[in-house]
Amino acid sequence: MKFLNTQSDSFQAELKALLAFETAQDPKVDQIVADICADVQKRGDAALIEYTNKFDGTSAQTIADLTLTQDDLKNAFDRIPAEVQTALQTSAKRVESYHQRQKMESWQYPDEDGTLLGQQITPLDRVGIYVPGGKAAYPSSVIMNAMPAHVAGVKEIIMVVPTPKGERNDIVLAAAYVAGVTKVFTVGGAQAVAALAYGTETVPQVDKITGPGNAFVAAAKRRVFGVVGIDMVAGPSEILVIADGSTPADWVAMDLFSQAEHDEIAQAILIGTSQAYLDEVKAAMDKLIEEMPRRDIIEASLGNRGAMILAKDLDEACEIANYIAPEHLELSVENAEAWAQKIRHAGAIFMGKYTSESLGDYCAGPNHVLPTSRTARFSSPLGTYDFQKRSSLIQVSEAGAQKLGQIASVLAHGESLTAHARAAEFRLKD
Amino acid sequence: MKFLNTQSDSFQAELKALLAFETAQDPKVDQIVADICADVQKRGDAALIEYTNKFDGTSAQTIADLTLTQDDLKNAFDRIPAEVQTALQTSAKRVESYHQRQKMESWQYPDEDGTLLGQQITPLDRVGIYVPGGKAAYPSSVIMNAMPAHVAGVKEIIMVVPTPKGERNDIVLAAAYVAGVTKVFTVGGAQAVAALAYGTETVPQVDKITGPGNAFVAAAKRRVFGVVGIDMVAGPSEILVIADGSTPADWVAMDLFSQAEHDEIAQAILIGTSQAYLDEVKAAMDKLIEEMPRRDIIEASLGNRGAMILAKDLDEACEIANYIAPEHLELSVENAEAWAQKIRHAGAIFMGKYTSESLGDYCAGPNHVLPTSRTARFSSPLGTYDFQKRSSLIQVSEAGAQKLGQIASVLAHGESLTAHARAAEFRLKD
Repeated sequence: MKFLNTQSDSFQAELKALLAFETAQDPKVDQIVADICADVQKRGDAALIEYTNKFDGTSAQTIADLTLTQDDLKNAFDRIPAEVQTALQTSAKRVESYHQRQKMESWQYPDEDGTLLGQQITPLDRVGIYVPGGKAAYPSSVIMNAMPAHVAGVKEIIMVVPTPKGERNDIVLAAAYVAGVTKVFTVGGAQAVAALAYGTETVPQVDKITGPGNAFVAAAKRRVFGVVGIDMVAGPSEILVIADGSTPADWVAMDLFSQAEHDEIAQAILIGTSQAYLDEVKAAMDKLIEEMPRRDIIEASLGNRGAMILAKDLDEACEIANYIAPEHLELSVENAEAWAQKIRHAGAIFMGKYTSESLGDYCAGPNHVLPTSRTARFSSPLGTYDFQKRSSLIQVSEAGAQKLGQIASVLAHGESLTAHARAAEFRLKD
Repeated sequence: MKFLNTQSDSFQAELKALLAFETAQDPKVDQIVADICADVQKRGDAALIEYTNKFDGTSAQTIADLTLTQDDLKNAFDRIPAEVQTALQTSAKRVESYHQRQKMESWQYPDEDGTLLGQQITPLDRVGIYVPGGKAAYPSSVIMNAMPAHVAGVKEIIMVVPTPKGERNDIVLAAAYVAGVTKVFTVGGAQAVAALAYGTETVPQVDKITGPGNAFVAAAKRRVFGVVGIDMVAGPSEILVIADGSTPADWVAMDLFSQAEHDEIAQAILIGTSQAYLDEVKAAMDKLIEEMPRRDIIEASLGNRGAMILAKDLDEACEIANYIAPEHLELSVENAEAWAQKIRHAGAIFMGKYTSESLGDYCAGPNHVLPTSRTARFSSPLGTYDFQKRSSLIQVSEAGAQKLGQIASVLAHGESLTAHARAAEFRLKD
């Protein structure tokens, strides 16, 4: 783990180096993905089955072997322990409740000439959710992607989840049951993304694809963007904790671990305002690491990309946070609400000592799909609004056409677009 | 122009063929753009100046030669005719007024345990607007891109506009003056996009780039997406007019022309419910084409991609509109408001006979940057919300931590993320 001090002359350069992450797209991956996408677009189900058998070590004969029924989902739900059933249901309900508040409604208003202006809100017809399979299987992601789509009013939610060597994850399927997923195909990788984007004989074409995946999935989503919508191309997960010393050091240490345990390129950074507290957290980490099953991953992640930063005060800490624009920001400070108002860029802000990031990851209500790699400077958490869209509404009155027609005519002539001008002029009274 | 009839067996196939448009990215363009972007990222201003001189036929020595001051913008405004000044100002004011209504506000609410949930809305810090130069110079685009950014609260708006052979367009610069653009650089192409995305010694790095451009600009925007936000990669412009015969045929004919005059690949489609009315519009087009300065472009566009479709009734016409998901939809029918409710997918809906698309293009108030190529199935007009972003807010109470901690613990263990579970468990009372 690195140790930085804002009073050092080299701080800005060190911070920049700490955040640097090679996001260049691998041309080899891109070429493989391009070929797979083109093949699935052309040959549909047959290609999808072949790639799935090849990459996932399955032996599907027909697409039916890669399709789960509602009964399969229900059976998975019935098989999992009661406490997990309840946890999934409670999480889904809380996520639903929060996302209801994000729902956009249509509006319109008349101007002084009786011209009507507004926007009409509609849900997407059909969306696809990509859920990773294998070792990193996240049922919580199913809930976080499907519930906002439901709230938006999306009628069909198609989920894809690879089952390497045919192994299905009951909790993931149970989450799909709880979240009301319409249909599940046990396919993954670029081939699954292509099937959703272009449609096959069996997989229906969707309007948008959301959900995380590996480099092949990310490259495929990039490629099909435009044919369908996509949520974002996520980078490694990150947390920034700003602590004034009022939260027990053990708690902060574990919050940093909970980010670091994701993978070796995850990033956990702590900004403190006293060296003594940073030392305390460091000691807590040294102690707690012993009991971590994912110790190797945590140590690699902290070694590669972790850091502690000593800042002179909380104002400076907030400024650094705005530069970093972190995916997750814990304001583990007294009076956190007031400090949150100084934050301009962050995916989610976790306020106060009781708000561990993990509560937000699973069940607080807001979405856990958040902008990474400084993209919180310009983008937002996944939400209900990602599954709705707006159409502008304009109904110009006869009186309005007289006024607007003259302006449009002048500007259209200024752009040498005569037909635009004439169309406006036709509506003018003689 | 093609003529389709929904009663024909081959209608679906013919419609699909009509809408098909090759959107594949040209690998040669991509490679050129990749090289330019990398070079500008590395060499900054020097590279920007070189590419500008090479592609735009200018002879700039320093970046100052490619920088406009506020005085330059003011002088341009002072040079243009009074009626154009007023038209720009009225347009900007109406666009501002509409976009005020789109502004998102922060909100939060406590749950039953006193846990606080919400979202905090902030503007982007700095945005870049790309404005095409040369023959297709659109002052209205300056207003449509800059005003929503203003309304959102963006502090700095950096505009780039190429000036081929040094030729500046006064109305474009006047529009920048009226729209309150912060800074203008007279650069364009992939090099301008790269300068905005990565920043140079002189051009400040922005958080998002919006605005239309040619194939090189589009490829560059795609490439820098992730480093900065982008609005969309726009395809050819399109209009779909649904007419019940109540609008004068001349008016509808001119509305179709106003789309077709954009360029040879623009698309204008009319759906009518009576052959007699379609014939009337066709006759009007044959008559009116004579007076069109851009006759060649209009004829090419209509010949390549234009169509008239005879539908059996307005319900069927609306179904076809939902399939097409047009950028611009004119409901040139009686009782248009009621029919608009049947439209699920469209960028903007122009209702009633007085609402020519051109009134919306210039000054009605809603944005003219709209989703093209069927992307209205999943995306929305450019708006204030494109220049704002949301941060989730979570402040878990001590009581809330007891309930949420148990759920998070169960789900985290289900995902084998022990540190996530422990972080939640630490917040439980003994």
